Amino acid sequence: MKIQPVKGTRDFYPAEMARRNWIIEGWRKASLRNGFEEYDGPMFEYLKMFQIKSGDEIVEQLFSFKDRGGRDLALRPEITPTLARMVNQRINSLPKPIKWFSVPRLFRAERPQRGRLREFFQWNIDIIGLDDILADAEVIFTTVDYLREVGLTHKDIRVKISSRKLLAAGLVNIGIAVNQLDSLYALLDKYSKIPRDTFEKELARQVGDTGTAGKIMEFMSVTAINEVPDAVGTSREIEKTMDELAGLYELLRRMGIEQYCELYPSIVRGLAYYTGVVFEVHEVAEGLRAIAGGGRFDNLLHDFGGPKMPATGMGMGDCVLEILLEERDLFEKQLPKAGLNYFIAYVNESYRDAAVELAMRLRLKHFSADFSYKAAKLGSQLKQASAQNAQKCIIIGDEYGDKQLLVKDMTSGAQERVDVDKFFAGLKRN
Amino acid sequence: MKIQPVKGTRDFYPAEMARRNWIIEGWRKASLRNGFEEYDGPMFEYLKMFQIKSGDEIVEQLFSFKDRGGRDLALRPEITPTLARMVNQRINSLPKPIKWFSVPRLFRAERPQRGRLREFFQWNIDIIGLDDILADAEVIFTTVDYLREVGLTHKDIRVKISSRKLLAAGLVNIGIAVNQLDSLYALLDKYSKIPRDTFEKELARQVGDTGTAGKIMEFMSVTAINEVPDAVGTSREIEKTMDELAGLYELLRRMGIEQYCELYPSIVRGLAYYTGVVFEVHEVAEGLRAIAGGGRFDNLLHDFGGPKMPATGMGMGDCVLEILLEERDLFEKQLPKAGLNYFIAYVNESYRDAAVELAMRLRLKHFSADFSYKAAKLGSQLKQASAQNAQKCIIIGDEYGDKQLLVKDMTSGAQERVDVDKFFAGLKRN
Repeated sequence: MKIQPVKGTRDFYPAEMARRNWIIEGWRKASLRNGFEEYDGPMFEYLKMFQIKSGDEIVEQLFSFKDRGGRDLALRPEITPTLARMVNQRINSLPKPIKWFSVPRLFRAERPQRGRLREFFQWNIDIIGLDDILADAEVIFTTVDYLREVGLTHKDIRVKISSRKLLAAGLVNIGIAVNQLDSLYALLDKYSKIPRDTFEKELARQVGDTGTAGKIMEFMSVTAINEVPDAVGTSREIEKTMDELAGLYELLRRMGIEQYCELYPSIVRGLAYYTGVVFEVHEVAEGLRAIAGGGRFDNLLHDFGGPKMPATGMGMGDCVLEILLEERDLFEKQLPKAGLNYFIAYVNESYRDAAVELAMRLRLKHFSADFSYKAAKLGSQLKQASAQNAQKCIIIGDEYGDKQLLVKDMTSGAQERVDVDKFFAGLKRN
Repeated sequence: MKIQPVKGTRDFYPAEMARRNWIIEGWRKASLRNGFEEYDGPMFEYLKMFQIKSGDEIVEQLFSFKDRGGRDLALRPEITPTLARMVNQRINSLPKPIKWFSVPRLFRAERPQRGRLREFFQWNIDIIGLDDILADAEVIFTTVDYLREVGLTHKDIRVKISSRKLLAAGLVNIGIAVNQLDSLYALLDKYSKIPRDTFEKELARQVGDTGTAGKIMEFMSVTAINEVPDAVGTSREIEKTMDELAGLYELLRRMGIEQYCELYPSIVRGLAYYTGVVFEVHEVAEGLRAIAGGGRFDNLLHDFGGPKMPATGMGMGDCVLEILLEERDLFEKQLPKAGLNYFIAYVNESYRDAAVELAMRLRLKHFSADFSYKAAKLGSQLKQASAQNAQKCIIIGDEYGDKQLLVKDMTSGAQERVDVDKFFAGLKRN
């Protein structure tokens, strides 16, 4: 019987695994150099934990199951609830600000689509306990730091920045009632995802007044902070949020990433829990879903039974990123080629044991080494050494009677005869 | 509301994450230097896939669930079925032998116990397509290579080796019927896990003859290959398996790990699917469960709908290993201390932006850098630099007006005044 993998999951053969490892290693390094420490939680939690932040509608998108005691559990669709639980558990002993990152494997019980699978990896960075726009700037910097590192320039990607506070203040100033904001956000979230005329029609239907709808469209098209008052007028709250965003921009400029950033009021992020600056990273060409997204969520710890404490963070999945890196040939150009330090060949069966012994001695010195399992023709053994991308090939032939080896440099083709003992004596631990 | 983690799962705060990463990184490095390539599969598969190798009784030990299409899925309790599925899918295009490793996160729906959790990591190495005892020897070598690397000597651990073929031939020679072997294996598996007199009583009950039971006890106490005929007599099959084990021992000796190895006939490994050499790694002191286990399973690919092809492998979980490393202080002695390359302090608020800018410039050069978020007293900022284990601390004070910095070496305490531009010009990318 032939068995298939489950749809929306991935098999990582060595070639795909190398890409996955390269992405994750890049996330790790960017996190560490930006001062974040790594954490992780369990792959499953109590189902009710995921309902706190995202409501009952999340249940449909979860893989949930019962343990043998009948308790309702679910595979994690995101790690933020786990982060909140873990931080709350040690809230008094953890030094603030907490700068943590994680690369959780996450799950969504959805129909798989391009860039959206049922199982994926997501880089998460969070700064908790710093009530300062500097934290938001640092989260954006770290995000761009990684993306720039893998070869994406400001011509490829754009960080679209908005603020929940600016949106609220602007919309209220235009005449939207506070209790209408949430349903309006759900629509604004679709601003660049659906055709403009469909959006406008839906907007007119929702606000019930063409003048207001027009003003909202004007607000959404603002691309610089100083254009805000022209679009929505002004108020104390608007001025306050404009100052905050100006402060953010000044930091992004100092950090050297202002070219990557753009004010984009329609960014709201789906989730209700954002409270301040929000952002998404998009491909400039706009063919793909968001590459990353994040923002400030000052109520998180409190929602999970902890104290009120400022928090801001970012999440970046591996699926859209992988498509983008592939499209731009950035794997091709950068993925380190796996290979061996040494491959050991031998001219006939009688030297096989010697080959085994040499390989093990090299491995003990931390060199990667492999050998031919059969005494095939030397030419085909050398081909295998090339196929395994070996830097050097050791050939055991009749010189071995005089305790000598041939060492062939697989790049230059140069070959030298060396004494076995001298060879090992000269070999520093790798 | 306070939410608890699910019992039998672990929260990895940065300290625990560092230990987990160190273990997994060690497994990876040992695999790579021994010529294995990394793969991984999905975290869940169709439930029926897990029943092929382990029968229906496995279902009770799985976390299973349905997707939205009503299909039965389960979290993987092991990765071997996925390996078989993946290899079978590309059986013709993959060069043989296939030497693959993986570090899957696995799940068991059991009551958690010491060294046995509901969620854990397991190092797996497999060699497929090499019909040679050398493959078994290499799997054992790679296992010991890692364990020796983390500081476990032959005084700490023992590889207990047996062979399903030797067991079968010996037991048949003693007079056990072939159709009784499987139920007898289940008992032999408990040989060193239950009190000896309980074992003997159960054995006598099962074989129904004290003489035969006595011979089995003698067979189980054999510790060298040449003692086998004295215990069970001889036959062509016994001689063949003795030759094979002698060949294995000769290889283990050449590989330099014979001190770690011991013949131990009662090792059968629980699973029915082993077909040749089997082994377990145990603490010499015997207080813990097996650290690792493995063996030959030549029917694996065929059972999963592929061709008949030789295969041998090993699995090592992280839970027992972690207890052992902890008990011997081996984390304490070896775990690399996380830290920063640079911490940036400043004498007053007016220099904060400069600190931010310097930190970002250092990060761009791939140095890990962090800075004080508040202009606290210099002494407390230096304390924070120490707490974050910074190698160097840059202090921004009034010299900054002349474009100069103080750079303090946190180990020696030495401090020097440097020109900002010269400092960066002299800094090679990390």
